Amino acid sequence: MSKPQDVASTDFAHVFAHVRDTALLESTSALLEWDERTGLPAAAGGYRAEQLTYLCGVIHQRKTDSRYGELLATLRQSDLAQDTTSQVGATIARLHKDFQRNTRLPIDLVQAISKATVLGQQAWEKARAANDWAYFQPYMTEIFLLRRREAELLAEEGGSLYDALLDQYEEGARSEQLTAIFANLRDELVRLVQELADAPHRPTGKSWERAVPVAQQREVSRWIAGRIGYSFERGRLDETSHPFCTTLGPDDCRILTRYQAEFFPSGFYGTLHEAGHGMYEQGLLADWYGLPPGMAASLGVHESQSRLWENFVGRSHAFWKWCFPEVAQRVGSAWQGLSAEDVYRDANLVEPSLVRVEADEVTYNLHILIRFEIEQQLMSGTLEVKDAPAAWNERYQHYLGIQPPSDRDGILQDVHWSAGLVGYFPTYSLGNLYAAQLMEAASDRLGDLDGLFEKGEFQPLLEWLQQEVHVQGFCLHPGTLVEKVCGKSLDAQPLVRYLRRKLEPVYGV
Amino acid sequence: MSKPQDVASTDFAHVFAHVRDTALLESTSALLEWDERTGLPAAAGGYRAEQLTYLCGVIHQRKTDSRYGELLATLRQSDLAQDTTSQVGATIARLHKDFQRNTRLPIDLVQAISKATVLGQQAWEKARAANDWAYFQPYMTEIFLLRRREAELLAEEGGSLYDALLDQYEEGARSEQLTAIFANLRDELVRLVQELADAPHRPTGKSWERAVPVAQQREVSRWIAGRIGYSFERGRLDETSHPFCTTLGPDDCRILTRYQAEFFPSGFYGTLHEAGHGMYEQGLLADWYGLPPGMAASLGVHESQSRLWENFVGRSHAFWKWCFPEVAQRVGSAWQGLSAEDVYRDANLVEPSLVRVEADEVTYNLHILIRFEIEQQLMSGTLEVKDAPAAWNERYQHYLGIQPPSDRDGILQDVHWSAGLVGYFPTYSLGNLYAAQLMEAASDRLGDLDGLFEKGEFQPLLEWLQQEVHVQGFCLHPGTLVEKVCGKSLDAQPLVRYLRRKLEPVYGV
Repeated sequence: MSKPQDVASTDFAHVFAHVRDTALLESTSALLEWDERTGLPAAAGGYRAEQLTYLCGVIHQRKTDSRYGELLATLRQSDLAQDTTSQVGATIARLHKDFQRNTRLPIDLVQAISKATVLGQQAWEKARAANDWAYFQPYMTEIFLLRRREAELLAEEGGSLYDALLDQYEEGARSEQLTAIFANLRDELVRLVQELADAPHRPTGKSWERAVPVAQQREVSRWIAGRIGYSFERGRLDETSHPFCTTLGPDDCRILTRYQAEFFPSGFYGTLHEAGHGMYEQGLLADWYGLPPGMAASLGVHESQSRLWENFVGRSHAFWKWCFPEVAQRVGSAWQGLSAEDVYRDANLVEPSLVRVEADEVTYNLHILIRFEIEQQLMSGTLEVKDAPAAWNERYQHYLGIQPPSDRDGILQDVHWSAGLVGYFPTYSLGNLYAAQLMEAASDRLGDLDGLFEKGEFQPLLEWLQQEVHVQGFCLHPGTLVEKVCGKSLDAQPLVRYLRRKLEPVYGV
Repeated sequence: MSKPQDVASTDFAHVFAHVRDTALLESTSALLEWDERTGLPAAAGGYRAEQLTYLCGVIHQRKTDSRYGELLATLRQSDLAQDTTSQVGATIARLHKDFQRNTRLPIDLVQAISKATVLGQQAWEKARAANDWAYFQPYMTEIFLLRRREAELLAEEGGSLYDALLDQYEEGARSEQLTAIFANLRDELVRLVQELADAPHRPTGKSWERAVPVAQQREVSRWIAGRIGYSFERGRLDETSHPFCTTLGPDDCRILTRYQAEFFPSGFYGTLHEAGHGMYEQGLLADWYGLPPGMAASLGVHESQSRLWENFVGRSHAFWKWCFPEVAQRVGSAWQGLSAEDVYRDANLVEPSLVRVEADEVTYNLHILIRFEIEQQLMSGTLEVKDAPAAWNERYQHYLGIQPPSDRDGILQDVHWSAGLVGYFPTYSLGNLYAAQLMEAASDRLGDLDGLFEKGEFQPLLEWLQQEVHVQGFCLHPGTLVEKVCGKSLDAQPLVRYLRRKLEPVYGV
């Protein structure tokens, strides 16, 4: 591993300095967004949008600066660029690709998208609270219009508009390939849901009916995040309406969750999930902050880390054997009379439900599939925004056998589209698939993981992930990276295998 | 009142747009600082300094942009600039002055100051916690060195270096004039302190010995801030180690206080003080945000607003007659057995003490005088930073008859010098003097203020201040503004009169 400062090239040094300065602005912009979602005064939304839009313009100018582009073009011809899987080679290749992409986008469009999505998120908050789709519809229409225009400018010859956006989150992924894998996954999951529905020993979910005061949940969350390896020296945990993780610098990665006194898993699993994201960011190479070797490989790989800690670890039998007395002691009387077994079983209750972020591991991917299908249709123009709620409800009926009683628990539940994140949802299912493959590889390499979890030992797994995934940064295609670590190409079987191996005994199937 | 958009001049429109965009960056920078002081992860200080230094450079470039300077020069020759007390005229005159000042400062120096002060504040936090002056000394030395260099570049022909800095906080103020007024004030106050020390009915301070749980103090603070007129729609109240107020946009002015379970007035009066600052900012003209007509007139005028609400209102007899049952009910058993009279008297306990922010109204100005004298000596070179703690302790002995047992409660108590704020302290005493004059004028105009406070009616006073001070912005010299509102020039008598009129009956003098 080299440091960027050690690369013997003045051109590279200039590029490095330029990108690091851009990252100073991008991380500042991330703080403006973090603050917007943690406690911006009600009347301050308009000015915050102006701040973000302005910074977005400055950042875009820097990213399309012609002198910077010339340096990249020169570097691309140099020896440094030959091995595109090396840190330096990957940096040059990716920055050059980004430059090409950014120069295709006029600054007006970039700023229009920034503004529309900041205002869109503010409108979404209001619309969701008031269960008022009509209020949000014009914002969403505008956002899809603008991102379509962006996709038209970016799409490859013959490539779909949707893939042009998807590629920004998951380099190299194509909707055609995903559709095939997801179809296979869907068939397997629908069958499994059916088998579990008819099973003799279904979990009851009664553990989660115990109310736990939010103050105690906060304490549990802080404790478990630190316990699995999230560093509070280099991060913090806050509360918000839609949990997320954001990075404001090489030593400042923040996570946010939400607590419901009446539903413990919301805060607990929200924390495990976001801490998984946070530990990935904290495991990146700080020397390369802002450059590909110091960046996450993709959103799919990012999601593999969050889902791995949330589900593969946090809903395992071994985890609850260790964790149950620890949590029980922290929540006091709330969990009296419960056992590790009760909580473990309820953490694995599979049941069709309306809200993605609280869905179980099996049906979760069906929620994603619905969004993936709808956003592809919206981009291709075969569905209009105004008809999206109906399409949403129909698909819930079709895939999950239930219908949202209101848009609040239907199409208004997710922040993503209001934030312009189109092509983002499929990376969630990719994350599940990657996580399953990574856990199989981790077992092969580390041996008895359950034996470690039963003792509350998470460091070996985290260190393995740091070594194999985190410090690798974004030097390979995300698909290639996972394939290299796991020794096999992407398919649905590891995930299905994992789910069946865990759930069949729980349900007595 | 006009709106900046209505000014029929393309040059003015360009200047307006330029300054508004600069303000977007300055307010973003203010968020970086607010966040640093509310919960930045421990390891993230270095990168935060980089972000702030970078933004500081971009802002300085914008402020010294030659095209912008040419526009200002042209406008200065135009009819718009003739009446320098009009909103447009004052804007042109002040922006032109700022431009001239900024172009004298090389960007390296500006960025060096930014970096030194961010790191200085971080070092100060550590040094204060560890009571370790030696750790902080090199940071403070560097900061004074840099600000001296700045002052050398800015000082007027024959003017003192100190005044060059003072003018940035209090336009038109000169240390010579302040020294004379403060000397008069000092003599009066030293005499008053002595009389009160020998008085028959000294307050005991026992009310403040009641511990009040922080959760209840938070509730009280939120309530009282809103009750006197601070808007939470356009602000928020947080906690920090050194209370302050900061503005992040026309509708986002945040205040911060600190609670001590064992000392109620810390949080309560901290809140009243910062809410006073906050209401001033919230009373400025939003249309002119970032330009002189939408800016505070000076730090002295700013402090007049905070001290007015904290002391002239918040330590008045009438205030406590109304406020006592309201607070007593909110703090439950903690205040059982106390009366409005007890709390009022203890709120007016005059006693030499070590910590400025918790000093009473009388001795407070002696704390300021000490800082004013020391920083003038540091700037003129007649005192070295390494000798500052001794100078500090000597003066405390001399003016207040007490000596700090440690630097933590001595020279390390204030954040200001670590933040590069040299020439800032005297504005605190100016604020007290202005507040006394403003309250005399308010009484003349509004009649029986006590009658209003006894009923918890603060709106008439706030509206009067908004009209006479807030919406006036920074179109006049601060001294001229106060003189215009009050019909008399600055002197110490109104403050002395106010203190004697209140304290003599309390002490039975």
